[in-house]
Amino acid sequence: MKRRELITGIGTAAAAGILSAPAIAQQQPELNWRIVSVAPKTQALFYNACVTFSKMVADLTDGKFKIQVFGPGEIVPALAIFDAVQNQTIEMGYTASYFSIGREPTFALGSSLPFGPNARLQHAWFRAGGLDLLNEFYKKQDTIMFPGGNTGAQMFGWFRKELKSKESLQGLKMRVGGLGGTILSRLGVVPQQLPTGDTYAALERGTIDAVEVTGPFDDERFGFQKVAPFYYYPSFSEGNVELGFFISLSKWNGLPKQYQSAIRAACSFAADEALAGYDGEQTEPLRRLLANGTQLRQVPSDITDAARVEALALYDELSAKSEDFKKIYTHYRDFTANAYQWWQVAEYGYDSMMLKSLRR
Amino acid sequence: MKRRELITGIGTAAAAGILSAPAIAQQQPELNWRIVSVAPKTQALFYNACVTFSKMVADLTDGKFKIQVFGPGEIVPALAIFDAVQNQTIEMGYTASYFSIGREPTFALGSSLPFGPNARLQHAWFRAGGLDLLNEFYKKQDTIMFPGGNTGAQMFGWFRKELKSKESLQGLKMRVGGLGGTILSRLGVVPQQLPTGDTYAALERGTIDAVEVTGPFDDERFGFQKVAPFYYYPSFSEGNVELGFFISLSKWNGLPKQYQSAIRAACSFAADEALAGYDGEQTEPLRRLLANGTQLRQVPSDITDAARVEALALYDELSAKSEDFKKIYTHYRDFTANAYQWWQVAEYGYDSMMLKSLRR
Repeated sequence: MKRRELITGIGTAAAAGILSAPAIAQQQPELNWRIVSVAPKTQALFYNACVTFSKMVADLTDGKFKIQVFGPGEIVPALAIFDAVQNQTIEMGYTASYFSIGREPTFALGSSLPFGPNARLQHAWFRAGGLDLLNEFYKKQDTIMFPGGNTGAQMFGWFRKELKSKESLQGLKMRVGGLGGTILSRLGVVPQQLPTGDTYAALERGTIDAVEVTGPFDDERFGFQKVAPFYYYPSFSEGNVELGFFISLSKWNGLPKQYQSAIRAACSFAADEALAGYDGEQTEPLRRLLANGTQLRQVPSDITDAARVEALALYDELSAKSEDFKKIYTHYRDFTANAYQWWQVAEYGYDSMMLKSLRR
Repeated sequence: MKRRELITGIGTAAAAGILSAPAIAQQQPELNWRIVSVAPKTQALFYNACVTFSKMVADLTDGKFKIQVFGPGEIVPALAIFDAVQNQTIEMGYTASYFSIGREPTFALGSSLPFGPNARLQHAWFRAGGLDLLNEFYKKQDTIMFPGGNTGAQMFGWFRKELKSKESLQGLKMRVGGLGGTILSRLGVVPQQLPTGDTYAALERGTIDAVEVTGPFDDERFGFQKVAPFYYYPSFSEGNVELGFFISLSKWNGLPKQYQSAIRAACSFAADEALAGYDGEQTEPLRRLLANGTQLRQVPSDITDAARVEALALYDELSAKSEDFKKIYTHYRDFTANAYQWWQVAEYGYDSMMLKSLRR
């Protein structure tokens, strides 16, 4: 019995050490965690942000807290990352929460909602209470999320035929997911769910008529330009898409405070790098695409107008079905409408002036 | 002698410990540093970003690396912060480097240059080589800089009389600094250098005719709206203003790698908070100002056009005088022109669509 008590005693002391780490800093634990990124290595800006995150956590903890990065499919499939964090198959995942909207529409709000804010205003919303609201929701899923990087505004997608008006959407088979897909389905589109890797072949064969991925930096590598001449902007459905770092809540709660701070700061560092990457790396591929015959087109305004009407109706329906959605969406919608009032003055005014100046 | 050798030996071991910290992590030093913020407590978003930075560094180092925050004037005056870092009176400063353009025009490029990129593209430029170029320059000043937060696009300023055309600028006494002031002086303005605290009284008495500070969140507190009815946008000279965390280079080089990482990550964390704060906090004060009679006006385009011509001429002159300016400015200018080509498609397209949608 004495020996067992001693062992139990050691166990308790170790557990206490984790909970009150600052008092015994020299005893910080060696940890080996795993994170799965929804972005494969070929989607380099997001994948590299995940690597940057991991490296920063190691640097901040003198190499004691190691988080190994895996690509989609290496431990769990891309679309199962959130579930795998929730059930603790993996400690962390780097993904867009809107892949889980089949379970609950509230998942859309952590990454992107059609007609939402732009990327800077998304972060302003996080700070203004949005992130706390999201984490109240994620807490019910035994997870916690930290913002992890944004594509900025995406393209609406690649189309084999020109979009002349909303009539052009009737029966159009488009690879598009999320609530954007739901909205488009109400305008006559037949949304298709396809893994990114199968998309090019489907578009080439004509099994689908259109495809949405992100923007020139990622899209060019898939080769869509060879089989679809029209490249449309803007994307009403993805004005910003934020990836999140998701952590199992019990794993998070078990971390020393110092390691929690390391995660928090490293997420922010990686997020800045990803958005700055997208913002800086899109022009060159876009220019190459245009030089090789891609035709850049603006989405006809009757499509956007009709989509807006459907989006607002959809959000009313979802709010009636889900208290979580209603609570967070209402906050998000009001913040966005409010923040754009300032945005249109100095920020949009500045961009308008710069674009005019640079065209001379 | 033996005793001296022993002491010398200990000293060397301690120094080696700092240089190769990861091997003896338990020996991380207790440090007490001081940082002076150019923003006083009343300029809450920037001041608080400095506090957030300090707190995060402490959290990341288990309380061992303490950086105490001081306001302007508490140790050194606001405009002497960079010099005080350089001569090691203080270990760190949080300031806009353009306050030092009197020494060398290159200092403008680290914070803001008229007709530069917006805040996101400024960060994209940092990532694309801009920060390395700046730090090559700062290295010559025995300092290193990390981006620390941005106001986003500022307002052009408060005016007692309406600006009808560039003729309205003739003889106008305006509190405006930096290269924006130089450009305006070539259009007939008489730039005035005044500490922020003296500005309201000067405007009230009519000693000056106009004043530029930042935007509604900061400006409302000064009360300019009581004595100048016209509030102009956009500011061609401050499309983004980045504050930097500046560190004495020898102090930086003496830090354990783990502490360097803590500073790097904490700067990024604080920077995101500051920009998200400005983006989210400007609408309410703007609305109050407008409800109380402030008249929002767009800068006449002939003023902006003439300022652009003068700005390009000025940058040519500065490039001829300073190799550093020429090298960094050329990179910055080309990056900005390039990145705005992508920006005008998806991002500006998205904002245009959202602003139209929200007006209904």
